[in-house]
Amino acid sequence: MDPQQSVADALKGDRRAIARLISLVEDGGRDLPEIMKALYPHTGGAYSIGITGAPGAGKSTLTERLIGRARQDDRKVGVLAVDPSSPFSGGALLGDRVRMQSHATDAEVFIRSMATRGHLGGISLATPEAVRVLDASGKDLIVIETVGVGQAEVEITDACDTTLVVLTPGWGDAVQASKAGLMEIADVFVVNKADRQGSKDTVREVKQMLEMSDAEWKPEIIETIATKGDGIDELWDAIARHREFQTGAGRLEERRRRRIARELREIVAARYRNRVETESTELLEELTGEVVARRMDPYAAAEKLIAAL
Amino acid sequence: MDPQQSVADALKGDRRAIARLISLVEDGGRDLPEIMKALYPHTGGAYSIGITGAPGAGKSTLTERLIGRARQDDRKVGVLAVDPSSPFSGGALLGDRVRMQSHATDAEVFIRSMATRGHLGGISLATPEAVRVLDASGKDLIVIETVGVGQAEVEITDACDTTLVVLTPGWGDAVQASKAGLMEIADVFVVNKADRQGSKDTVREVKQMLEMSDAEWKPEIIETIATKGDGIDELWDAIARHREFQTGAGRLEERRRRRIARELREIVAARYRNRVETESTELLEELTGEVVARRMDPYAAAEKLIAAL
Repeated sequence: MDPQQSVADALKGDRRAIARLISLVEDGGRDLPEIMKALYPHTGGAYSIGITGAPGAGKSTLTERLIGRARQDDRKVGVLAVDPSSPFSGGALLGDRVRMQSHATDAEVFIRSMATRGHLGGISLATPEAVRVLDASGKDLIVIETVGVGQAEVEITDACDTTLVVLTPGWGDAVQASKAGLMEIADVFVVNKADRQGSKDTVREVKQMLEMSDAEWKPEIIETIATKGDGIDELWDAIARHREFQTGAGRLEERRRRRIARELREIVAARYRNRVETESTELLEELTGEVVARRMDPYAAAEKLIAAL
Repeated sequence: MDPQQSVADALKGDRRAIARLISLVEDGGRDLPEIMKALYPHTGGAYSIGITGAPGAGKSTLTERLIGRARQDDRKVGVLAVDPSSPFSGGALLGDRVRMQSHATDAEVFIRSMATRGHLGGISLATPEAVRVLDASGKDLIVIETVGVGQAEVEITDACDTTLVVLTPGWGDAVQASKAGLMEIADVFVVNKADRQGSKDTVREVKQMLEMSDAEWKPEIIETIATKGDGIDELWDAIARHREFQTGAGRLEERRRRRIARELREIVAARYRNRVETESTELLEELTGEVVARRMDPYAAAEKLIAAL
């Protein structure tokens, strides 16, 4: 299939074309720069929400509820479930994507598990590119849900317009959230499974930690029971308030600017990582042997690779 | 302080010198390549264990118990608690490092929370370098504990000689572990908090998922109650069995080889990421503006940055 035809079809909202382009992003093929060039002028219309939190916190169920809420307002929705397992297992697990089946027949909802099969920049570069595919295809709202909670996931969700951090009462205390780098990136806290014991404690602990912050935006804390749909309207409104706050005084543009600057640096880094692999395969192998044998240290070996580029 | 003096002192096991060198790794200063060059010939004696799992799974307590077990065998131990929060908060949180205080007065145990304050390669490059500091200083065993569980954490622990994946009965099912990319990297599974309801279910689920694998090594599943010290001897023995398996047939060397090859590529990538920041500051800002305004796409902007290097 001609990639430019896929772009043209995706711009009209064609689901198969969107799927094809996201696969292409995952694979990181040669056509990617050209496709991104074609898509890019059509982006900028969507608002993105990132969702992170420990595995089992209920992120997928929350996402499904947010889709439902967005559809009430007639917003077109794209969902990316960022799944790091793929580099190991060779294919994104669908797992509880199935749970989102309630929206499977809705033509204005596009849900996709996403991983990187060959993209040289890894998931942190592939994710914004997949977001652009959805953005250009006319989605109003894009939800990026991560599977785990770690450095890469924190960076991915931090690169969204509004970042939700999902905690659960069983998760331990707010110190865990802080250790995982979640306090600094949250625009809205969600305490999910709020019918469980200890929910009020979690809310109180997060409040206490937030009191130490002198940031301009004070994250709201919303209690939800995603399985029942409780608290979803409140969460939706909290997201809207954060969006409103951001669009004022150029804050959203500044946020997007920082994101682009980071992405540009990462594209450059990925390009050279790739050149080492493709142009210096033998040299890399030889130098690796020298380093393993401790005849050379890693930095000296890297210098030789750079000199050969 | 002269870095080479720190290296000389660290090689003798001097704690303050070790601490200074790890800080230097975190900061990613100019002296780093030279320091790594001086340390590198003295490395290779240590065995490394990676511990990953969701926040709150009890990784720190397990680590403390493993330290105790290692000390029974008179092994010198280094611990790195990899903490991604630092790029955001500006300083590693000590949090439950305090819990490891039982070993604080033991001269043969070195415990350190670690983050990246300026290291250009991020935590995935800084971690193996900090491991080398500990290795060169004479530690026999190095435990790398991550705070969260995500792509970067999975990669960091996968880069150890033996990888422990910690699950808890409350964590949900084995599907969560699989989604987070944990099934593929685990050399030993630990089901911690095994006195909680559902522990046997978790063990059974993991077993079922492992049955689908045709890998040469069949990960053991060890139940522990880290707070009480239950199951620690069994875990210790399981680690020893995996170590023995690996040292046979050159498997450990092959594993370390892959790790070095990856590290070399990452050093090259980090070098160019840095050059964009330091040599092309104004150009980066200008191009970012063009991309934000959608007059240029990210790949085209990256091409211009590369051309200017």
